[in-house]
Parts: sequence; C-alpha cells; structure tokens
Amino acid sequence: MTIHTLTIVGVGLIGGSMGLAAKKRKLAQRLRGVGRSRDSLERALAVGAVDEAFLDLQPAVTGAELVVFATPVDRIVEQVLTSARWCSPGTLLTDAGSTKGRIVAEVEGQLPPGILFVGSHPLAGSEKRGPEHADADLFHKRWTVITPTSRTDAAAVERTRAFWQALGARVRLMAPDEHDRALALTSHLPHLAAAALAGVLLTGQDLTGQDPAALAELAASGFRDTTRVAAGDPELWTAIFAHNQDAVRHALALLAERLSQFRQVLDAGDWTSLGSLLAQAKKVRDALGN
Amino acid sequence: MTIHTLTIVGVGLIGGSMGLAAKKRKLAQRLRGVGRSRDSLERALAVGAVDEAFLDLQPAVTGAELVVFATPVDRIVEQVLTSARWCSPGTLLTDAGSTKGRIVAEVEGQLPPGILFVGSHPLAGSEKRGPEHADADLFHKRWTVITPTSRTDAAAVERTRAFWQALGARVRLMAPDEHDRALALTSHLPHLAAAALAGVLLTGQDLTGQDPAALAELAASGFRDTTRVAAGDPELWTAIFAHNQDAVRHALALLAERLSQFRQVLDAGDWTSLGSLLAQAKKVRDALGN
Repeated sequence: MTIHTLTIVGVGLIGGSMGLAAKKRKLAQRLRGVGRSRDSLERALAVGAVDEAFLDLQPAVTGAELVVFATPVDRIVEQVLTSARWCSPGTLLTDAGSTKGRIVAEVEGQLPPGILFVGSHPLAGSEKRGPEHADADLFHKRWTVITPTSRTDAAAVERTRAFWQALGARVRLMAPDEHDRALALTSHLPHLAAAALAGVLLTGQDLTGQDPAALAELAASGFRDTTRVAAGDPELWTAIFAHNQDAVRHALALLAERLSQFRQVLDAGDWTSLGSLLAQAKKVRDALGN
Repeated sequence: MTIHTLTIVGVGLIGGSMGLAAKKRKLAQRLRGVGRSRDSLERALAVGAVDEAFLDLQPAVTGAELVVFATPVDRIVEQVLTSARWCSPGTLLTDAGSTKGRIVAEVEGQLPPGILFVGSHPLAGSEKRGPEHADADLFHKRWTVITPTSRTDAAAVERTRAFWQALGARVRLMAPDEHDRALALTSHLPHLAAAALAGVLLTGQDLTGQDPAALAELAASGFRDTTRVAAGDPELWTAIFAHNQDAVRHALALLAERLSQFRQVLDAGDWTSLGSLLAQAKKVRDALGN
C-alpha cells in the first residue's frame, strides 16, 4: 500500500505515532499534519511525525488520498464533515476515536457523494499526551477495531484495513455499538476504577490519619500501576464518557457488583471464598500477559 | 554496617532481592537462605541470592547476627518464635511482611530474653514470584516502614533502620496499626480493585455479547495496568486481607463511595462534575510520578 498524500488531523500521541509509523514503513509519499497550535505542529515536525504542517483543514485535506482524524471524540464528527467538503470523490476518511457509535451514526449519511468514511479505533495509547511521546511502533501487533455498518462501502473497509495493517496493527471488525459496549468494559471502566482509587487518597484521612501527601509516599508500585490511567486528560475522557454513557453505566454496575462480592466475603471473614475470588481474577489477569 | 551472618528466611522475590542487595553492597560476611523446597533454594543459589541454603530453621539461624523473615504473613509469627529459641542473646529478628499489627502484637512479649524483634515492611515488590525475579535494586530509594512499639528496644530499631538503609531503602517509622490502616488504602485496596475489575471480564457477556477471551483481546494497556496486581498470589493476599480485615473493609467502603459519586454524575449526565472528579484524580496521580 502506498498513499500519495496522507493527512493526519491531530498530531498528539496517537496522530504523531501514526505519522512516525507511516514514515518508518514508507507508507505515504506526502505526510501532512493538522494541529490546533503552532507549538504542537512544531513539536510534531521536530520529531519527524509529519512533513508538512497546517493549522487549517482546507489546505491540508485538499488533494489528500486518506485523511485520519486523531482528535478528541467530541470534535471528530464536525471535523470530518467540514473536511469532506474539500475532498475529491474517492477520498477515504477514517478516525482513531475511542468511541464509535455516535461518531459513525452522525457522519454516515451526511457525507457528499463519493466521500468515504469508515470508523476506526486503534487499541493503543497512553496516559501521556503530545507528539513528543509518539512511537513508530505504538500500533505494532496491537488490535485496531474497524466499525463498518450496512451503509459502509465495502471497498473502503478494505482500504481502511490495509491502512492499519500497513501501520503494523492487527484488525478486527465490529459493529459500532458492539465496539462501544466492549470498550466500556475494557477501557472506560478501568479509567473510572483508577480515578476512583486515586481519589480515595483524598478521602482516606479518617481511616489512616495520614494526609494525602503522606499517603502518597506509602503508595508503591501496586497503587501506581492500578491508578496509572487516571493521569489521562480529563477533557478527553469526559467526552468519551459522554459518548458512551449507557454502556459505561452498565459496566460500572458490573464492577460495583463484583466489589460487593468482595465486601461480603471480607465482612464475613470467609477467607476460602475470598481466595476463590482472587484466584478467578488471577486467572483472568494471567491470560492477558504482561 | 557489616553483618557477620545474615539469614534470610523465605527466598522468593523479596527474600531473593534482599540477598542480591546484601551481596551487591557487601553487607554480610555469610549469607544464608531458608526455603520450603530444594527447588526454590536451588534457584536462589543459582541467581546468587544466597550462599548457603537450608531447609530447616535451626541450623540456618544458629549463630546468625540478623535474621529476616520474608515469608507469607500468616507464617511469620510462628517462624520468628521458633527461630528465637535457637538464637543467641543480641540476635536481631525482623520481617518483610505486608501487615504489621497482628505480627508485632503476637511476637512481642513472647521472645526469650535478649532476642530482639522489630517489624518491617519494605514497600517494594511485584505480582511476580520466586528468586528468579529477584532484583538487587528492588529496595533502592523505596520506602521501608519500621513499626516499633513502646516495648521495642530502641537500639534494635536503629539496627533495623541501618539494615534497610544499607540495602538502599529509605526508612520511615510508624506504629503497627497506623501502618496497617495506611497500607489498607495504598496497597490492599488496589489489589481488591484490580481483582474486581479483572473479574468483570467474566461477568461482562450480557453487556458486551463477547466471551471473556474475546474481551481479553480488546483489553489494551489501560486494562493491563489497572489489573496488573491481580496476578499476585491468591494465598499470600488472602492472608494479608485476613490480617487486616477491619481496615480493608473501611478502605473498600471509601472506594465504593467514590465510585458511587462517579455513578451519580454519569447517571445525571453531569459532565462538568465528571470532569472535576477526573481532574482531581489526575492531580493525585500526577503527584505520584510514573
């Protein structure tokens, strides 16, 4: 696969990593990036994530063969529909948003004739932000979910699949809502659990007699691992939760139910059942690998 | 500090790391290890964590200047009291157990005259087990909590402090119960949260339509980080929870309360408040460093 002009909208960690991966794999003849500020564009240019930098969509997407939107989920729809007006028929638009249901529903059916859109979500990322944390191998062997619907052009799905595979990813197809329900559990729920746990340092003084700073000193690698994703950007994550409200509420109820089982066995001092619950969890976690 | 004979009881990840650290820093003239099986002792010898290996306590602790118990918390008291019978007056016994209240209370007052015990807990570790994962720098710049009481010999506390500092650790003194309440929050609670979250993969099929194996494929780095500690040994952790039941129940209630706040703002679609909760959590997490 060679793309004559690849435009990446959003040159943060994900967009920057796509740029680096595309260059490493010689995927695009021209590599354009669109950023919100001169500063972020300069950092993207400095790490070599893009070759040409734009503050405006129009010149960046005009003549592009493929445009990928790696921006916060609450901006993608507007940017896609705006960009589509300046694209030529046959141009493929895709995205890297963490939610898919609302984005795909709001884009499909609103595009000019001949402009193609396929929803995507690379399951890769970090709590870090900015092109200076970009990594050419971020997608390597990681899953990217592509979310076609009955209205999605079949050839566009295959081009989207080829694009992500060219970046090193493995590709899986799911319906947009199916994606959102699964990710509510595997990605959005961990964020809530991590944020709630981190927040407990602020409310733990009655129990521990230690202020948050003193407690933080006693937080070793277990606490750090378990709360790491809570360092993610609150605005980005609020937009994700707003897009996936119902599934996240359901997922949170499942977690509350599981925690309630732990509470019951702890209250009862039922160490055999506690051991069984911990062994179940270990089995799940061991199967994931490191 | 130089110890003529240092005996490490339990040659797993923690005991093995103490042995490697002691050798790297030339802390002991003789380094003995006690293990439950020939196999674990051979692995400890193979990585150089101990120089002499013993299956029995008596020959290993006889003549030792310092004996440290890095065994599961439900075995430490018995091993300390058994060992003490074979130690000479002036011998210092300490431990590396994750709970301190019950261990210190059950040991103090039961020791033969002249045998000294000080409770310790190095805040370092991993979900991994065994001397093959030992690391000479595991304690480097990490906190070790020492838990003296009004009955603890002051000179023994200073020797214990010097021992951990010689292994590279920073030392903080806390009362045993104070330690247990703080660690309920910073260590035991994360384990429960991680285990509950991992367990949700088993109960999530109604929401997602995906079986646990399919969901596991969709679990990216966020899920992996947040659940990592759930891979810890269920028996070790059950013993920790049994030792610290009341404080862990209290900590779990604090987490449930915080999750309930998330549930309320999600139910209400109150994205401003959700953003504030996430921003609070990010601030706590950012302050911890990586």
